[in-house]
Amino acid sequence: MRAYPSQNPAGTLTIDTARGVTAARGFRASGTTAGFKDSGTPDLALVVNDGPQHAVAAVYTTNRISAAPVQWSRAVTADGRATAVVLNSGGANACTGAQGFQAAHRTAELVGEALGTGAGDVVVCSTGLIGVQLPMDVMEAGLAPAVEALADDAAAGVAAARAIMTTDSVPKLAAHEGGGWTVAGMAKGAGMLAPGLATMLVVLTTDAEVSSDALQWALQDAVKVTFNRTDSDGCMSTNDTVVLLASGASGVRPDEFEFGQAVTAVCHSLAQQLIHDAEGAAHDIEITTVNAVTESQAEDVSRSVARSNLFKTAIFGNDPNWGRVLSAVGTTDAAFDPDRIDVTINGVTVCRDGAIGDAREGVDLAADRRVTVLIDLKAGDADATVWTNDLTHDYVEENSAYST
Amino acid sequence: MRAYPSQNPAGTLTIDTARGVTAARGFRASGTTAGFKDSGTPDLALVVNDGPQHAVAAVYTTNRISAAPVQWSRAVTADGRATAVVLNSGGANACTGAQGFQAAHRTAELVGEALGTGAGDVVVCSTGLIGVQLPMDVMEAGLAPAVEALADDAAAGVAAARAIMTTDSVPKLAAHEGGGWTVAGMAKGAGMLAPGLATMLVVLTTDAEVSSDALQWALQDAVKVTFNRTDSDGCMSTNDTVVLLASGASGVRPDEFEFGQAVTAVCHSLAQQLIHDAEGAAHDIEITTVNAVTESQAEDVSRSVARSNLFKTAIFGNDPNWGRVLSAVGTTDAAFDPDRIDVTINGVTVCRDGAIGDAREGVDLAADRRVTVLIDLKAGDADATVWTNDLTHDYVEENSAYST
Repeated sequence: MRAYPSQNPAGTLTIDTARGVTAARGFRASGTTAGFKDSGTPDLALVVNDGPQHAVAAVYTTNRISAAPVQWSRAVTADGRATAVVLNSGGANACTGAQGFQAAHRTAELVGEALGTGAGDVVVCSTGLIGVQLPMDVMEAGLAPAVEALADDAAAGVAAARAIMTTDSVPKLAAHEGGGWTVAGMAKGAGMLAPGLATMLVVLTTDAEVSSDALQWALQDAVKVTFNRTDSDGCMSTNDTVVLLASGASGVRPDEFEFGQAVTAVCHSLAQQLIHDAEGAAHDIEITTVNAVTESQAEDVSRSVARSNLFKTAIFGNDPNWGRVLSAVGTTDAAFDPDRIDVTINGVTVCRDGAIGDAREGVDLAADRRVTVLIDLKAGDADATVWTNDLTHDYVEENSAYST
Repeated sequence: MRAYPSQNPAGTLTIDTARGVTAARGFRASGTTAGFKDSGTPDLALVVNDGPQHAVAAVYTTNRISAAPVQWSRAVTADGRATAVVLNSGGANACTGAQGFQAAHRTAELVGEALGTGAGDVVVCSTGLIGVQLPMDVMEAGLAPAVEALADDAAAGVAAARAIMTTDSVPKLAAHEGGGWTVAGMAKGAGMLAPGLATMLVVLTTDAEVSSDALQWALQDAVKVTFNRTDSDGCMSTNDTVVLLASGASGVRPDEFEFGQAVTAVCHSLAQQLIHDAEGAAHDIEITTVNAVTESQAEDVSRSVARSNLFKTAIFGNDPNWGRVLSAVGTTDAAFDPDRIDVTINGVTVCRDGAIGDAREGVDLAADRRVTVLIDLKAGDADATVWTNDLTHDYVEENSAYST
């Protein structure tokens, strides 16, 4: 049995967090102000794949109530080909009925006309309040300047990342350069960041030569151990979308394993940036379960703790309340002997063999924003990490005050 | 399909909320101060069944990490016979290892010796902080005065209910008199009330002549639609216990259906009192799902909404945010067509056929503490109600400040 896992599922690849989607060759981007937001900040982003390849992979929310743009985009990416992604903040276009789907469709048509491509190759993403129709006059007027602003430089990548922000305090960017090819991306949202519904939107780009099938496998593997294990408040959005576009512009066909690691490393970096920018949060919490029988059971245990409001409020109060960890563990179906579990918080094993361990006074939660919780089930050799935040007054404030 | 279900699963039986466990004949009770709590308030309760029958039924937490008193009491009630229940607040005796189990065992021995009965007929319940050993010197010294104080009058029932309070602001009592027999009870805890871990302790008494098998069936049926649908913060305690003692002192053997309805009505009243006394809460929320294919699916849908932090903070902010209701519904496996769901909040159908319904401005959430949410799946004819509270600043405050 291993005592400690590698928390970064991709190991230690170098990530540049100053560069976004345009770090990969063959891509242009823009971020402009169309007027969806009352605040007057940028709210329309475009990412265009200039090829020569136009492969795409995507992962969408598993929420059965999905927004119109998700329904549209699912159909677009089903054939593994896309040329552009258009994203707006200031309105989720979710639960908007037939009119909402028409709006997503029409948005894709307008982008397709402006770029000289088919509407069926345009992915659409929206974020904001549910149950409000998207103002299509704003979209129509805003798209021409957005297309006009398209550029392939670093500033354009940053501008696109800024235009998809809602309550994010900073844009989230990440890029990794491999052997002649690059994987890059931008993200917004997650949990407390996005009181509108915690919508997470991620656009990844690569100039590697990769088939759409290989692209989909790499993306699914990466999302599974990064975004899907970032569980800020247990709430699942109607709009979550992660899309990966490949231009092939590097002319290099990477090793599949190396490419997968790069995609995972970029996703991991973006997921960590999302957790770290959760405005309502005072602590970033990393919950790792080790020595489970299966990875799935390890994930269940970590996630159960990540979703316990009692545990999350205790961490906010700088209280290493391991009883609340154990009580969350006890609600899972994972294999374990209750009298053998150890819980270690910030290096102090406060619970040993299911009972009182080292003195809880030895745990310092006030010194650092980062908190690590290690749960040793002593049942097998599988592990999994889930990242979350504490539950704070600011979380309640942001999420109660949002739409009123 | 029915439009509205009966929210009280027991119909409209008359409940006296001023009388506790001594309302049923054949029972004595006491509530005294042993000294488990630093506050000096009562913290030791006894309920004694003087017969002639000594039937018992019990339902315990399904948390796999269960406290020592739960492990002890499971064994005690397995044979359907018990003569007394001893309960302490000021310490949960959970995650306390072999020493903790010895403490529960020794407590039962001491009570048995004082009452002239076997330790194997004494149920033990504890509530308070996890991971702290129960001070047995306090227990030993406290039991003699507790036995001394035993009485069969109404005041003794109230005193017992007071002695199990933690952060409860009032004792919870309920009694129903049927055709010559009575079902009565007391409760403490639930959700935000009990930051220690939301421990819920309930002791019910009846003077009806009922076999322990029939008692168990009636109790399980009642708990299923009352306490198990009271979901204040989604956290499950290591100590939850509901125990029903039957003395047979009325000499009346009731109709099984009528008896079951009475047990359900008393449990429903106690569960509502728990929700209403949740100190951190500003709203009591009743979430009813109608026209589901099965009752289990209706319960899943109601519970999913009850556990959404985003929905619960919205209600705190007096925001009828139906998008957060739908997004929680969408995470369940219940059968429904997303384009047919209606959501009605306080009588206003804000979502109709999965899209925008009547104006949300018509919903007044500030006027009353009680909020009703009705979700119509239009898929079958089953329904279920789950009761919860909103997520407030006071919840965060109480649960972060508790043990530090």
